[in-house]
Amino acid sequence: MPDTPFTFTLPFPTLIPSHFDNHIERRLSSLKGQFFDLDTYQKMLAVEDSLVYEVYEIRRPEAAGEILTGISIVHPGKVGREFYMTKGHFHAVIDTAEVYLCMKGEGCMVMENPQGETSVASLYPGSVLYVPPRWAHRSVCTSRQQDLVTFFAYPGHSGHDYSTIERQGFGKLVLEGEKGIEIVDNPRWNKP
Amino acid sequence: MPDTPFTFTLPFPTLIPSHFDNHIERRLSSLKGQFFDLDTYQKMLAVEDSLVYEVYEIRRPEAAGEILTGISIVHPGKVGREFYMTKGHFHAVIDTAEVYLCMKGEGCMVMENPQGETSVASLYPGSVLYVPPRWAHRSVCTSRQQDLVTFFAYPGHSGHDYSTIERQGFGKLVLEGEKGIEIVDNPRWNKP
Repeated sequence: MPDTPFTFTLPFPTLIPSHFDNHIERRLSSLKGQFFDLDTYQKMLAVEDSLVYEVYEIRRPEAAGEILTGISIVHPGKVGREFYMTKGHFHAVIDTAEVYLCMKGEGCMVMENPQGETSVASLYPGSVLYVPPRWAHRSVCTSRQQDLVTFFAYPGHSGHDYSTIERQGFGKLVLEGEKGIEIVDNPRWNKP
Repeated sequence: MPDTPFTFTLPFPTLIPSHFDNHIERRLSSLKGQFFDLDTYQKMLAVEDSLVYEVYEIRRPEAAGEILTGISIVHPGKVGREFYMTKGHFHAVIDTAEVYLCMKGEGCMVMENPQGETSVASLYPGSVLYVPPRWAHRSVCTSRQQDLVTFFAYPGHSGHDYSTIERQGFGKLVLEGEKGIEIVDNPRWNKP
């Protein structure tokens, strides 16, 4: 990997980076057990393994002095009343933070730490979110029409721990209610 | 410092963060010896110690797992033919990178590494620049009317080394020429 400065652009309207090293597509099937309404999930999956979110990554060495960046795109959609979301993860090196800059769309970040404290932050264009070290995080697209697009940056040595969240879920669910967005307790949460 | 997630916004048109912990103002006097045209610099300074650039910082612990973020604003202006610019610096922990996302304006980043290799990258809205570990960096505003506004993110343990650049300067100067922007060799560069 050349160690010289490099640039890329985030062209409107897609905001897909003009240069990237890795493109991840996550479909319904990769979120098994994460959506609350398991029946609806199974029925949807039987019809189509829909695209839920995408990540465009810029590769750098996985070292503490590096910053890993990219674009996350969560598409609009629901499983039952629950909005489309990312798998969510802790960092494998848990004392590492992450910064999100929302470029487009509407949504929120669902977060929790290993003590079981929870937090939900709104994301909208021009909002910046600081996820401190030790907080797991999951993005949720709450628009019916528009992608939620965020630019992210985290330390090169962070790594990912998906399995803890796969096992315990998040404490909060983000649902479409009659009067708007509802943030409710997750009855199936295996609180740490 | 509370270790809970927090958000702030970058409201148009100023993009000054809705929340910040530190506001740095750098005036002409703090860039002594950095502009090539020393006579014009002294004459300008005798009239007014003009504001050249500002930084709005979000404070976090200066640890490897944290990300330090903020907004940098370089105002339009020139000293002779040389555009207003930041002091520029290496990181004290030299193996640390920095990411810039240009939010507004036109400009460039002048960079060089300890081997004396140089690089200049354009900055414009939607452009992202990755400054790898070991590269000193200085932002330059090349618009006559508009601020150059960038969002930056770098590892918490980076620190700043301003003295190396104060001593040796950068290898490249960014000037206004008859046909546009000129990037020229700095005759006073103390090449490492």
